[in-house]
Amino acid sequence: MKRPILLGFAHLLAVLACLATSVPAFAQTDPLPSWNDGPAKQAIVAFVQATTTQGGPQFVPPAERIATFDQDGTLWVEQPMYTQVVYCLDRVPAVVKAKPELATVEPFKTVLSGNREAMAKLTMPDLMKILAATLTGMSVDTFTAEVKRWLAEAKDPRWKKPYTELTYLPMQEVLKYLRASGYKTYIVTGGGQDFVRVYAEQVYGIPPEQVVGTAGGTKFGYDKSGRPFLTKEPKLLLNDDHAGKPEGIHLMIGRRPVAAFGNSIGDKEMLEYTQAGDGARLMMLVHHDDATREYAYGPQSKIGTFPDALMAAAKQRGWTVISMQHDWKRIFAFDQ
Amino acid sequence: MKRPILLGFAHLLAVLACLATSVPAFAQTDPLPSWNDGPAKQAIVAFVQATTTQGGPQFVPPAERIATFDQDGTLWVEQPMYTQVVYCLDRVPAVVKAKPELATVEPFKTVLSGNREAMAKLTMPDLMKILAATLTGMSVDTFTAEVKRWLAEAKDPRWKKPYTELTYLPMQEVLKYLRASGYKTYIVTGGGQDFVRVYAEQVYGIPPEQVVGTAGGTKFGYDKSGRPFLTKEPKLLLNDDHAGKPEGIHLMIGRRPVAAFGNSIGDKEMLEYTQAGDGARLMMLVHHDDATREYAYGPQSKIGTFPDALMAAAKQRGWTVISMQHDWKRIFAFDQ
Repeated sequence: MKRPILLGFAHLLAVLACLATSVPAFAQTDPLPSWNDGPAKQAIVAFVQATTTQGGPQFVPPAERIATFDQDGTLWVEQPMYTQVVYCLDRVPAVVKAKPELATVEPFKTVLSGNREAMAKLTMPDLMKILAATLTGMSVDTFTAEVKRWLAEAKDPRWKKPYTELTYLPMQEVLKYLRASGYKTYIVTGGGQDFVRVYAEQVYGIPPEQVVGTAGGTKFGYDKSGRPFLTKEPKLLLNDDHAGKPEGIHLMIGRRPVAAFGNSIGDKEMLEYTQAGDGARLMMLVHHDDATREYAYGPQSKIGTFPDALMAAAKQRGWTVISMQHDWKRIFAFDQ
Repeated sequence: MKRPILLGFAHLLAVLACLATSVPAFAQTDPLPSWNDGPAKQAIVAFVQATTTQGGPQFVPPAERIATFDQDGTLWVEQPMYTQVVYCLDRVPAVVKAKPELATVEPFKTVLSGNREAMAKLTMPDLMKILAATLTGMSVDTFTAEVKRWLAEAKDPRWKKPYTELTYLPMQEVLKYLRASGYKTYIVTGGGQDFVRVYAEQVYGIPPEQVVGTAGGTKFGYDKSGRPFLTKEPKLLLNDDHAGKPEGIHLMIGRRPVAAFGNSIGDKEMLEYTQAGDGARLMMLVHHDDATREYAYGPQSKIGTFPDALMAAAKQRGWTVISMQHDWKRIFAFDQ
């Protein structure tokens, strides 16, 4: 009798395995385990359920499921300085090595001095000169290789971790939850499109073609052997911030998002544009109110500005404000 | 005994049905039935097999499977005039109705006259004025609605069919074959991005976010009720032709294509850029040499120019030239 019983048991296991694969994963497990229960988590879950329930009044066809995410301060840390700006400053010695005449010219002289106090006083035109010198003039392939090399070595001074690990675990869960629900997730960042595209797939699971950012022109040409290549030009095509976000979304995606996530005044127009469509909509703002685990900053911040007027707009328009302190159980994957 | 036999038969059918769904469709059926056997068809099939054979030396990971297609003359008819130019000319009466002062101003006066001979003599600056007046100045939503309405009514004078039916069946098969093989198919057109996006999903199965074209800027603003909207501006961001094609591909996709299809000198740089990548590559040019079933045009054509130098380049670089006359069994889905 032993053998038939074993066979029967194996058969039962096989049947159970079949049943298991036919039940949607999210019916059984919490898609947002790093979120505390509260209005923010509830808003996300309710939105996904409403827009993916076939036959429901708020059903959104899969092709139209577009969700856009600001990057700096929404998906990863932006303080005390945008990561891309750190990259540009770090690249200055190499730029000066290639063009020694820049060593005695401002703003390069100040950056080379390493004097943090003097660097903090650099003006916007100074910064633009540094961005132009470190982000343009090279081939696209050379730029990509330089960013990859830097990302592999550079570390954030506070957490002593690679910048690519400073991504918010709760937002990573939202990205995955939306994708598992048929949404295409896009980054819509004021940061450089070419810069973010280097690591977006590895860090966020978002492929280059779904990264919209501030973009400069490129110039097609041939090298000495006749091989074609693209050179990054100091010519601004899209300033992907404020009104530039909906404009960039139209240019690069051509559809209005159904959900949009930001964290600062520069994301306001993207959220307004998202909300102006018909049917269910989800607009969310990450509020940095957690000085202990990350940062607390708001109206007076130099970057990631969250003025009182934005909080008022969020309340008035029914946008959901995510409190880092109260809504997020964990901030980073490396947190205990 | 009758019932058990029936049950046994039903069971056998169920097993056969299960087996059938686990066999790849293309192993059994010709993915390119409208193509004659020949070097062009063989090049496509060999490329797809090489790049999708797991473990093979030319395997391309699914995420990198990008194929780009020129539109006019490659996916649909471009003679005797680009469809979008027909649209712009057809829109002139409505534009003049809204701005009656244009009725006596060139080039609008000539277009209103309906004098084909005079219209054929319009210069490029004249045409630019017409494009600006009919493609910009309105909201994105209004423009989309106008194009949809026009497409539903307008007919090509030769075939007496809607323009959206003048798409080449063999190329539709290539699009579907590539998609079934894990490729993302993109349109990369010199035509207007916003124009082509209106119908690309319906006509080619290509969603708006996979249409790259000549693009103007938009301007974000609010209507009287405070609802945000985008206005199409007469400001060129991307001239998606010649060198603008690889530049546009980098801007909008951020990856180098593995396969590229064109039909004119304006597609040369896109094919060169595609070929310059590593591994298996497919570069193809549609040659319009079929005056009976479509058109025959080449070096002397005003549009879709295929100079002898392009044919020489194709031969030298190993690009495959598709002969409409010899490679295509059928041109249109409505052909018998």
